[in-house]
Amino acid sequence: MKDHATRSELTGTFWDRMSDINAGMLATPTNRARPMSHTLHDDDRTALWFITAHGTDIADAGKSGSAATYLVACQRNKLYATVEGTLDVVTDPKTLDDLWSPIADAWFEGGQKDPDVCLVRMTLSKAEVWATDGGAKFLYEIAKANLTEATPDMGEHAVLTF
Amino acid sequence: MKDHATRSELTGTFWDRMSDINAGMLATPTNRARPMSHTLHDDDRTALWFITAHGTDIADAGKSGSAATYLVACQRNKLYATVEGTLDVVTDPKTLDDLWSPIADAWFEGGQKDPDVCLVRMTLSKAEVWATDGGAKFLYEIAKANLTEATPDMGEHAVLTF
Repeated sequence: MKDHATRSELTGTFWDRMSDINAGMLATPTNRARPMSHTLHDDDRTALWFITAHGTDIADAGKSGSAATYLVACQRNKLYATVEGTLDVVTDPKTLDDLWSPIADAWFEGGQKDPDVCLVRMTLSKAEVWATDGGAKFLYEIAKANLTEATPDMGEHAVLTF
Repeated sequence: MKDHATRSELTGTFWDRMSDINAGMLATPTNRARPMSHTLHDDDRTALWFITAHGTDIADAGKSGSAATYLVACQRNKLYATVEGTLDVVTDPKTLDDLWSPIADAWFEGGQKDPDVCLVRMTLSKAEVWATDGGAKFLYEIAKANLTEATPDMGEHAVLTF
């Protein structure tokens, strides 16, 4: 992963696949990992977004500007990642409108204007990413690369910064 | 999740889905999470198994009897879990033969008898499990249950012990 083009490609692959993935496991230093559904906002490739309700652990973590780790392990989209960043609460009706979904709408009786709605942004600092076009065999390839200190051939694994 | 039958059903669902899932993220107190491929052994519902090579971080963690956490976030199989347990190295040719796969065979030049092969068992202590038959909406239901302290209706979420 010494090659800039390869790292750039992996960054593109990371975001492409994240846009197709529904959910991961979000943890903070004071909250155990739990499944959350992320979304991306337009062309912004520095943050993940979560719609939750005021009063939840994640809303509280956002209000305190907590660090967070988001783990993705998606067999279908062949992306495995440990994403790190910080949470905050964003009160921007335009962004909320952009991110609003039928699922969110089904949950919040008052729709986007429901006072319970809390939009949390996770601003990314770095992500350790494994991506592949292959099946489970690539996991052995990664182990092999770790073992022999060889560089993986296919741009599958790197620590990305944002 | 106060109902024993429901917890038992969730345990069954957990193992059924784990048998269809290829990989998760395995971490130990001294090793960052990385993707690993697990397998189950026969009807044993107390452990996950990993085939790796001597010299890898995970083999070393197994040799030292390390604690480990295995995170599963599988959209396809609708299972999200934080699995906790301890690692050890098992040198039983019969078990290795049972767990051997074409993928492992493609990696180890000497096959099952390759001196690099290291079989690691993760003996489970507990797992926090979220399972559902629905789509992303269930994530909101979980948030709602957390928020209102309501019990989820569908046996979707519990801490299982092994």
